[in-house]
Amino acid sequence: MNVDNSRIFKRLTENRFTTPLFLISLDEIERQYKRLKDAFKGRARVFYAIKSNPDREILGFLAWLGCDFEINTSGELGSVASLGRGCINSAPVKDIESIRVMHRWGVEHFAFDTVGEVEKLALHAPGCYVYPRLSVSNEKSIFELSGKFGMKGNDAVHALDIAKSLGLRPAGVTFHVGSQCRSVSNWQEGIKESARVFKACREKGIELSIVNIGGGFPINYSNNHIGIESIAEPVLKWVNEYFRNNVELWLEPGRFISGPAGMYFTKVIGVKNGNGGHYAYVDGSVFTGLMEALQEQGEFPYRVEVLGKAGKSAKYKVFGQSCDGTDIIFNELSLPELEAGDVVAIYGTGAYSHAYGSRFNGLKVPQIAYLRGRKLTWRK
Amino acid sequence: MNVDNSRIFKRLTENRFTTPLFLISLDEIERQYKRLKDAFKGRARVFYAIKSNPDREILGFLAWLGCDFEINTSGELGSVASLGRGCINSAPVKDIESIRVMHRWGVEHFAFDTVGEVEKLALHAPGCYVYPRLSVSNEKSIFELSGKFGMKGNDAVHALDIAKSLGLRPAGVTFHVGSQCRSVSNWQEGIKESARVFKACREKGIELSIVNIGGGFPINYSNNHIGIESIAEPVLKWVNEYFRNNVELWLEPGRFISGPAGMYFTKVIGVKNGNGGHYAYVDGSVFTGLMEALQEQGEFPYRVEVLGKAGKSAKYKVFGQSCDGTDIIFNELSLPELEAGDVVAIYGTGAYSHAYGSRFNGLKVPQIAYLRGRKLTWRK
Repeated sequence: MNVDNSRIFKRLTENRFTTPLFLISLDEIERQYKRLKDAFKGRARVFYAIKSNPDREILGFLAWLGCDFEINTSGELGSVASLGRGCINSAPVKDIESIRVMHRWGVEHFAFDTVGEVEKLALHAPGCYVYPRLSVSNEKSIFELSGKFGMKGNDAVHALDIAKSLGLRPAGVTFHVGSQCRSVSNWQEGIKESARVFKACREKGIELSIVNIGGGFPINYSNNHIGIESIAEPVLKWVNEYFRNNVELWLEPGRFISGPAGMYFTKVIGVKNGNGGHYAYVDGSVFTGLMEALQEQGEFPYRVEVLGKAGKSAKYKVFGQSCDGTDIIFNELSLPELEAGDVVAIYGTGAYSHAYGSRFNGLKVPQIAYLRGRKLTWRK
Repeated sequence: MNVDNSRIFKRLTENRFTTPLFLISLDEIERQYKRLKDAFKGRARVFYAIKSNPDREILGFLAWLGCDFEINTSGELGSVASLGRGCINSAPVKDIESIRVMHRWGVEHFAFDTVGEVEKLALHAPGCYVYPRLSVSNEKSIFELSGKFGMKGNDAVHALDIAKSLGLRPAGVTFHVGSQCRSVSNWQEGIKESARVFKACREKGIELSIVNIGGGFPINYSNNHIGIESIAEPVLKWVNEYFRNNVELWLEPGRFISGPAGMYFTKVIGVKNGNGGHYAYVDGSVFTGLMEALQEQGEFPYRVEVLGKAGKSAKYKVFGQSCDGTDIIFNELSLPELEAGDVVAIYGTGAYSHAYGSRFNGLKVPQIAYLRGRKLTWRK
């Protein structure tokens, strides 16, 4: 975001906002959405993975841009049901009640990775479209998923055969390379395996048409990453090579769209120097918006700015406000000299942040403000 | 809990409860509270650390038993303000607004671990009682706190001197041995250090009267633990030895009171066998009530029962329902053969569970039912 953050923060506090708070740039949402569409040359249909940030303002804006949605549970349905866009479910394992509700309200595409799930879908979402989640390598991804979900190609073919016999409609396949993936070959492996499943199914008289390559597209924190164009180009090449372009390409970006759009403002409430280090305590917390810092144990590579201060004079350990010993936002971060009252802006916090917010310790889940052009808005 | 869990679960589902859900035994809350009071021979004043479970039913019940409360932020104040019991604040670092609100509504005792915090308290809670948080060893505790909070004895004496000069009232000291502590000598170290601070203060004309030994009292999961009596007995001996009993003893149990009282019921929604292991997927999640499983990366030693099934036929990896790869409840747990629909009861989940609940993935934060004698109740 190239904006004057100090000025924006001042305007927010003048409007009764208090820290911690999120600022979402709708312009950045639009930029990322369009960049993704362009990188895939308009060939791919985009389903925003709403789990990454189910904020209604973001969803409404994406619907307006023409984006479709991917949901995990019926609990996410309410946020998108009224938006008039497509909605699919790619969670391989679902609660029966969740399946029934989603199907009743118009979700037609469901993922699975066991025969048991196919049987559940046949009973509770009769006639729906199904696609198996294939297991692929999650090498070089920050958050690994392959241990939890996915089935082998042969098993997938077998399950699709059963699905067909139970009255379901085999639609295609899906896979997920892991979140924040930096290995392009993971996608190649997935597309190649998908083509194998398509071929084996065709031999059984099952025609598939969709390859859903999931999400995992990396964004730029403060570490190395690869641009989306460097992923899209070879992916399109492989789709041509393995499918002769005769396939629908689906994407499920979450972090890629919402991540760069978010900024988390948090205030320093205490500083401790000496005792073998510099410690800063902020009014934010891993439990009210920075859960990924907990998951990565203080090593998540967010970029950070201290409003109105420059330089890097000391290495700080940054603790969240809660009493919890695991509430560590940064294990070690070079920052200007801090004092109570300083405001820290943490970039790239639009995804997997507010979505995990709890009220642990009586802390409040941060408010959200939105920036569109020069216009700052919020919901009451 | 010695109750017929299958029968209780059936009654709950007949009353429209769905999994995941919490059952809180108020009898167990009472038993733990009284056991703690008895172990300390009625010598200690007990402040329940409400962060461990701020459920209003539990707080009201504890108030009725005569228990006082410890809060972390002004956000926790609303839950206890109307209960007519004592309320202290032992978070060493606080937001200014939080200090002001707590002080305005009658909180008089505050902790600190820097001179900066003393100055904040002097400005925003003038005349309040203060006690420094001393750093002590957190050896053999599951959740370590000493890296985050605490100051050395000499620094504490210096800070209390400043506090007095700023019009605050030095009240005593506090320390925290770490959560689920299994090393009794940590308490000895804390009491010894407290006595040193008392003595040094007396030489400066500052009379202290309270030793708040915090929480950390372990409960029995499925691992070894030490009984509260084996902690209380030496603690009382040391208090006698170092203070000649001439001191008020305060305790801040959280987990010890609420932990054993809770049971988490969650339903198996999918099972996967083969592929190098047995996987079970449940409708619960680390994000809707089992955060400590995330913090311990699937190694938290909860005791578990599968309703209506016995034996241990296979080792399961148990995943929570969310899409998240880190949503692992148990890395490896011996269980009877599972199938979709089985209900798993996870014991000892009354503390640091519901308190962290978020709505990630559209999942719902579980409902809570209460058991008192044979009477089952809940709030609408």
